[in-house]
Amino acid sequence: MPIVTIQVTREGTKPGADSVTANEKAQLIEGVSQLLLDVLNKPLEATFVVIEEVEKENWGWGGLPVDEYRKQRGLK
Amino acid sequence: MPIVTIQVTREGTKPGADSVTANEKAQLIEGVSQLLLDVLNKPLEATFVVIEEVEKENWGWGGLPVDEYRKQRGLK
Amino acid sequence: MPIVTIQVTREGTKPGADSVTANEKAQLIEGVSQLLLDVLNKPLEATFVVIEEVEKENWGWGGLPVDEYRKQRGLK
Amino acid sequence: MPIVTIQVTREGTKPGADSVTANEKAQLIEGVSQLLLDVLNKPLEATFVVIEEVEKENWGWGGLPVDEYRKQRGLK
Amino acid sequence: MPIVTIQVTREGTKPGADSVTANEKAQLIEGVSQLLLDVLNKPLEATFVVIEEVEKENWGWGGLPVDEYRKQRGLK
Amino acid sequence: MPIVTIQVTREGTKPGADSVTANEKAQLIEGVSQLLLDVLNKPLEATFVVIEEVEKENWGWGGLPVDEYRKQRGLK
Repeated sequence: MPIVTIQVTREGTKPGADSVTANEKAQLIEGVSQLLLDVLNKPLEATFVVIEEVEKENWGWGGLPVDEYRKQRGLK
Repeated sequence: MPIVTIQVTREGTKPGADSVTANEKAQLIEGVSQLLLDVLNKPLEATFVVIEEVEKENWGWGGLPVDEYRKQRGLK
Repeated sequence: MPIVTIQVTREGTKPGADSVTANEKAQLIEGVSQLLLDVLNKPLEATFVVIEEVEKENWGWGGLPVDEYRKQRGLK
Repeated sequence: MPIVTIQVTREGTKPGADSVTANEKAQLIEGVSQLLLDVLNKPLEATFVVIEEVEKENWGWGGLPVDEYRKQRGLK
Repeated sequence: MPIVTIQVTREGTKPGADSVTANEKAQLIEGVSQLLLDVLNKPLEATFVVIEEVEKENWGWGGLPVDEYRKQRGLK
Repeated sequence: MPIVTIQVTREGTKPGADSVTANEKAQLIEGVSQLLLDVLNKPLEATFVVIEEVEKENWGWGGLPVDEYRKQRGLK
């Protein structure tokens, strides 16, 4: 009965996308459920996955909203 | 001072509703606060309840987004 | 597929108990699962409940660890 | 590597604002990251902060949705 | 900057183990961090993983503590 | 009614301490409650703080349990 919560910033990883796509979400759900089967022998149907997309201004890193932190650090 | 977090998929239970209604939320809040009073003697005003509605494509079960899992299993 | 998380301080409600008892936990699990069935029509077997007991020195209220806050307020 | 999650109701504190402003969020991120540096010596770049704004009808207090509870108690 | 939280019951999957082993935890951490790199292009060093082991009497399924539910269903 | 959750690894910051001390916890509770009063005008008595200490083998960073990651990076 594992519960996996994945929190990411709401933004795209592909040109033109401004959020995680439905296909990427499906890959995350499949991958992490499979991992729990492989490592801990948890049946797929016993695993719940919740993906939470967080607006960038709501995510802090380095004492700053994440966009400012990335700019300061020269990260994308 | 209990904190209760209720995570559900964003969808309706009644015809025409596509999310949990304000009235259903009020019933959840009342019911769970009363439960904590009955079982653990926690005063109503010491209990916080947070309801999180999760988009269906963000919820995984059985290694699949929940709508696909339900289809596969013949669940509504 | 609801997930309910119940966070309470680790302490007893009955004389001699210093934590929530297994029986009280079972009542919380049953009560909240039934509530989700009654209000949102969620089948019992689709609901996960996680109870988290938090040490009192790890719980803050009113800007203070909870035991100090209760003392200050004359609460039990 | 601390993770700090701040959950608040989605509402404004200033006239005309109906949610937490980007500037207030930046102050929360900065303040709590600094606190973890001051108290536990955690470097700023090792702290993640996530702010979750919760719709008022999704927040319960005193067995009621928070707006009703405030009205009943004569709180703003 | 993803944050992944993995909640599982505290129990062993191998004979003689009564909890998740350090090696299994390392595999979960590696696998899920790699998944976020593969699917969303998140660098490994930007991902935090938190594993929470939950006592079985604190985990509810089907309206019952999980051990009773498994017994009832004839699950291991 | 804010809820603040602070997750840190269970380890000491002072020589001889192997966990966060009660005094450090009290400082975190006071500091973050004050911050919410200062920035969002939330009264102290409306803020709950929960501190979660996570075993180091349960915390992953850079695809590794945190102690290994620190060793690899030459961090304390």
